Amino acid sequence: MSTNTKERIVDAGATLFRRQGYTATGVKQIVTEAEAPFSSPYHFFPNGKDELAAEIIRSSGLMFQQLVEFVFDSSPDILTGVQNCFAGAAETLRQTNYADACPIATVALEVASTNEPLRKATADVFESWIKSATARFTAAGIPGQTSRELAISLIGALEGAFLLSRAARSTEPMDIAGATTTATVQAALIGSSSSGS
Amino acid sequence: MSTNTKERIVDAGATLFRRQGYTATGVKQIVTEAEAPFSSPYHFFPNGKDELAAEIIRSSGLMFQQLVEFVFDSSPDILTGVQNCFAGAAETLRQTNYADACPIATVALEVASTNEPLRKATADVFESWIKSATARFTAAGIPGQTSRELAISLIGALEGAFLLSRAARSTEPMDIAGATTTATVQAALIGSSSSGS
Repeated sequence: MSTNTKERIVDAGATLFRRQGYTATGVKQIVTEAEAPFSSPYHFFPNGKDELAAEIIRSSGLMFQQLVEFVFDSSPDILTGVQNCFAGAAETLRQTNYADACPIATVALEVASTNEPLRKATADVFESWIKSATARFTAAGIPGQTSRELAISLIGALEGAFLLSRAARSTEPMDIAGATTTATVQAALIGSSSSGS
Repeated sequence: MSTNTKERIVDAGATLFRRQGYTATGVKQIVTEAEAPFSSPYHFFPNGKDELAAEIIRSSGLMFQQLVEFVFDSSPDILTGVQNCFAGAAETLRQTNYADACPIATVALEVASTNEPLRKATADVFESWIKSATARFTAAGIPGQTSRELAISLIGALEGAFLLSRAARSTEPMDIAGATTTATVQAALIGSSSSGS
């Protein structure tokens, strides 16, 4: 079977995980959504749903990271990059009727205390996002430990706002998280530049 | 059947929702955990699992709010109250091996795009928390709109940190969210007191 089929299965799984979570998503539903042959998941993921789920978590985590990296790369400076991340998240929520948000948050909460291999997969994705954002803040002149704290604050604020915005069907929490996080990053930039001068 | 049985069912349901989410939790499991008669959920919640789930969401949301109100009431000032909320959340995560966090977050993400009555129940709980925190910030002298923004930032930061801390099995995200939110509230307090003088 083609790599293309595998990709379609993982993509369809990612969409379903994002919208309804891990437990509610059956392999059968993924195959139907992917318009893939019925036996194909067993071909690519012989160990079953959890092997497929781990691949979905890692793959959609990486895709989300690349999207955020692209937003930062397209922004004139890091502060605008932070603003654009939250603005883009708010726009996505509006456009998808509050269905598409973080690809792994729902799964991460479902499995945190129930499925150790999948818990580990979500932890690895979050840590990869944290490292990526930390490197950007460090490159902007902010000390390493402060950069890590800003990265965790940024991702935490984004995740919290996804939850509150989806529940309320309003971008108010996302807009506020964007403004608050931007102010926090700005203060760190000013603090680093004054202490460095 | 006694009110006590109903309470035991709702409490057991709240614990299971918190640890494994809505979809993974069957009525049968709730009854077993609650050590309640097999037919009791149908007696108290004749419309089935969703009626029970809505009661669990509202009841555990209220309980969590009362806990947070108690933390604020026991703190000498609002800034210490904010710090104590995050410190208490970190302590709970550690004590429960990262199982007990927000009682409604997992359910909220699971149902946001799949179950409108339950989505509404989670939105009502979050809005009630936001209003409660807003009133506290307003009482501390912060203007109304800023108070609402602080309240949403606080709850969003707490929720994001619950997610990241549970996934990583570390209180690092919660500790950082506490420090960041405390700094944000402190800046608002200073801003309000200087503009008011």
